[in-house]
Parts: sequence; C-alpha cells; structure tokens
Amino acid sequence: MNLSVVGSVGLDDVETPFGKVELALGGSASYFSLAASFFGRVGFVGIVGDDFPESSVELLRNHDVDVRGLQRVAGKTFRWAGRYGYDLNQRDTLLTELNVFEHFRPELPEDYAAAPYLFLANIHPSLQSHVLDQAHGAKFVAMDTMNFWIEGALEDLKKVLARVDCIVLNDSEARQLAKTPNVITAAKTISAMGPRLVVVKRGEHGAFLYSEGNFFFVPAFPLEQVVDPTGAGDCFAGGFMGLIAASGDTSWPTLCHAVVAGSALASFSVENFSVDRFRSLTQGEIQDRIAAFEAMTAFPTRA
Amino acid sequence: MNLSVVGSVGLDDVETPFGKVELALGGSASYFSLAASFFGRVGFVGIVGDDFPESSVELLRNHDVDVRGLQRVAGKTFRWAGRYGYDLNQRDTLLTELNVFEHFRPELPEDYAAAPYLFLANIHPSLQSHVLDQAHGAKFVAMDTMNFWIEGALEDLKKVLARVDCIVLNDSEARQLAKTPNVITAAKTISAMGPRLVVVKRGEHGAFLYSEGNFFFVPAFPLEQVVDPTGAGDCFAGGFMGLIAASGDTSWPTLCHAVVAGSALASFSVENFSVDRFRSLTQGEIQDRIAAFEAMTAFPTRA
Repeated sequence: MNLSVVGSVGLDDVETPFGKVELALGGSASYFSLAASFFGRVGFVGIVGDDFPESSVELLRNHDVDVRGLQRVAGKTFRWAGRYGYDLNQRDTLLTELNVFEHFRPELPEDYAAAPYLFLANIHPSLQSHVLDQAHGAKFVAMDTMNFWIEGALEDLKKVLARVDCIVLNDSEARQLAKTPNVITAAKTISAMGPRLVVVKRGEHGAFLYSEGNFFFVPAFPLEQVVDPTGAGDCFAGGFMGLIAASGDTSWPTLCHAVVAGSALASFSVENFSVDRFRSLTQGEIQDRIAAFEAMTAFPTRA
Repeated sequence: MNLSVVGSVGLDDVETPFGKVELALGGSASYFSLAASFFGRVGFVGIVGDDFPESSVELLRNHDVDVRGLQRVAGKTFRWAGRYGYDLNQRDTLLTELNVFEHFRPELPEDYAAAPYLFLANIHPSLQSHVLDQAHGAKFVAMDTMNFWIEGALEDLKKVLARVDCIVLNDSEARQLAKTPNVITAAKTISAMGPRLVVVKRGEHGAFLYSEGNFFFVPAFPLEQVVDPTGAGDCFAGGFMGLIAASGDTSWPTLCHAVVAGSALASFSVENFSVDRFRSLTQGEIQDRIAAFEAMTAFPTRA
C-alpha cells in the first residue's frame, strides 16, 4: 500500500435548496478515499455497523479502495443529518449519532502500516496518535482536525501536531487553533507547533499552502451552482494526498500541484450530492479542470 | 493627458487597533490618483473647500498628479470619520459631512476630456454620466459604485453601466447589484448589463477579473498586519488603470497584469494610515511585490 487513510464513515441525510438525499454514503474517510483513488490505490480504515449497505462497499472497491481495514461490527453506522440554505457556507446539523463510531479503535493492516503516505482524517486526536504509533512505514503524514477537538482535546491535538508533516484545515479552524484573526499569522503559528506544511482551505475563496516562509495560493473553481458542499474539504485532502502519493515526492512544485489537484477534486465533489459525482468522474475531466485552474491563474506575461 | 479620474476628496479621521489619524487626506480620487501615479501622469478632478491643506495639494503635485481639475471653493471639505476593530472587514462610520462635495459638478479640462483612459470613481451615477458626456477622447472607461447608489439610484446607475468598458466593485456590491448570492453568477450578470470587463474585489481574499467567459484570479498579498484598510479598493483601481493606461492596450495579458498591479498597490496602501505609504513607496518595491505575486501563484510544473 502506498497511501492509507483513517477516518469516519457515515450514512448522511443532506438537504440543500437543490434537493435532498437520505442514508447516503458520507464520512471523512469515504470522501477522502474516493477522491484519492483517482491517483492510485488507497488503504481505508474505518468502522461501520451491520446496517451499512453492501452497495457502498462495492462503490469503494470499484474505485480501487482497499477495504480490508474497514471494521464491520454489530450495531448502527455513524449517522449525520444536515441542512444547507442558499448561503452554502452555513449549515444546520439536525442529527449526530455516533453509534459504532463511538468505540472506534483504528487498527492498520500490516501493509497499510508500512505505507509511506498516511492521512489522519478528522477523528479524536488520541486516535490519530494511536494510528501514528502503528504507522512504522510513514514518511509523509498529513492530518485534519475540527473546532470540536481544538476546544475539547487541545493537549492531545498538540501532541499529534508535533508528529506530522502537514495539516490541512479550514480558515476558521486555523484562526481558532492559532488564536489570531489573521489567517496568515495563523498559518505561521500552526507551522511552529510542528507541521512543516500548513494548508488552509477557504471554501469559495480557495486554499493556500504555507511552508517555511513560502506561500502558494489557488482560487476555488468558479462554480455557479454548488449542489452539496458536504465533504468538499475531505475531497480536497484526498486529491492533495493522492497526487503526492502518486508522485512519490514532496518537493515544492509537487506540493503546489497537489493543492491544485485537491481544489479540482473538491470542486467536482460539490457538483452533486454525497459522493455521487465520483461515480461518473473521469481522468480526462480531472486533467481538463487542472488545466482550467492553470488558465485562470497563469501570471500574465506582457504581450 | 493619458488617464483622468473623477471622484471624491476628503479629510478623514480614522481609528484602528493600531493607531489613529485626524484630518488625513482621503477620498476615492486621492487614493486612486496617488496609486495610479506610479505608472504615469494622472488628471485629477475633485472638489475641496478653503480648509483643504496646501500640503495635500503639494503631495499630489509631487507625485505628478495634475490638479488643474481640482475645484477649490468656499466652505468645508468633505469629511469622513470611521473606526475599525480587529476584524478589519467591519467598520463603523462615525461621521459623514458632504460639505462642498454636495454641490460637486465635475468639469474636465479639455486635455483631460481628450484622455483615452478614464476612471469614474464612486460618485453619484448621474455625475458619472455627466463626466462621460464630456470625455470625448475616452476609449477605455472603468467605473466604481457603492451600495448606496445600487439602493438609491439604480436607474441612473444602469445608464452608466451601459456606457462603460469595465466596472471595478467589491463582492458584496456585486451580489447586491446582480441580486444573487453567487459571486460568479453576479459577475456574468453585471457584464450583461454593459461592461465587457468586471473586476470583483474580495478584500483579504483577493480579486478576480471576468470577461466573456474567461476568469483571472489573484490572491490578496499575505499581510500579517493591516494598519488601515481605508482606500484599498480605490488604490486597487488606481494600480489597475494606471498599468493599463501606461501599457496603452487592453489585451487579456495586460488586463491580468493590471489586476496584479492593482492588488500590489492596494496591499501597500493598507500598510499605513491614509495615503502615507505612498510617500515612501518606490518603483523597485512595486516590481518586487508583483514578482512576489507571481511566485505565490505560479502554476506548478512538475519537477
């Protein structure tokens, strides 16, 4: 295995102004691994209950996601329900039921533990540490987190931060973690906590990479209709890590390319509900979108 | 004259967490013309009272701003006072006194009217039309506006929009004018109202140019300390129009370059109060910052 991911798997009910879905595949590891799968095989670690549909397992398998790390236990799968208004930056959480996820104890199959690239999706930082303890082959580790852990498990979170190469988080989380309103200062402050690389996601405003005094900025793809923003951040991380793992290096040009790949995968993800856009997505569409990003940001050389 | 601007001139009191100034030079035409002056001579049209300090006129003259279009009349100069908190995107207006600006009737000296490049800064749209009626030599006209005119003078505003080549406005104004929450849809809608080019400023998130299906995005320069954001949008417009006027063409590469120049001038402007940063700004600093923008956005070519 080249790339492994550990995170949540859920069944989501999502309602937006453009429709709704029920019991749709969700969770950070699901979005991440499907996005990353367009760049290569992904080792998937998560937990589901006996209500988890076989069709979702098939979907992952069909995208070359290795599900040997998927624990299936008695009980109900993690459930989440949310509703978005026309301002897709705001959402109401209607339901959160941890169910079997509450007792998740991630265990990496040996070949996952030997993988050089590892992504710690948004789970309790103490579980992220538990995964790191197993990942003896990891040479490049990235992590995500959320406001809940920044508020409730900061000391555990700081221990993980000190051990990873990269953190991918959104701008409000970055400001909260660094205790500053300035997102540039926040990126520098977080990098000083451990990760050499800090990737800040800014939703409709794009994302930027910070490392050792250098910045790389990419806009969000200009979409006129966002159908469902759920999972966009996880898909960003999936495209980002997928490209790095496939490239096999972490030089600055590859990292910048990975930020663009992440932006591209995130932009596809929001074009349909749940992970549905990935059912039809092609390599050609991904390459075209990356080229479109280039055209939209290419620095002008005076004619 | 190659480039003319018509707009407000004021004396501002500004307070931010980093200090305050009183009776400092402000107004859209002041910020615009000083920023544009780094690219060439600017013909300045505005109105001030007999309290306007000679030192401010000298500052403009020293920057090769032509002030023959500056009307000096009896009475008090336009006054504005505002206060910013740590969130520099929010400000409280403490005072607005139109004074002599209330009866401003812009008149272009003949050589200003013959200028090929014209910027209509934020004044009543009927005055913008009055300027356009005089500008017989204009071959590229850009305009600004604000929420106040969108709400209170929409029909007049639409008449101006139908006559200009370009509008430069911020994202909230774009959404309001186009009546849509989506800023991409807003840009397209506004372009359909007349201007071939729409430039949307997004504060700390940068700016983008839209024209005929094409986009160009640039981030804001990553500043850790913004001292005073007043006038940043006008400085953006000044750098943008200044570069276009100096280039003498409006091809896509020049327009993109102009967006970067605007972003650079805006980023300098906010580093100090009022127009003070321009007192010491050098051509070398501008070129270095434009090069820094290039480095931060250069699309990665895989190593």
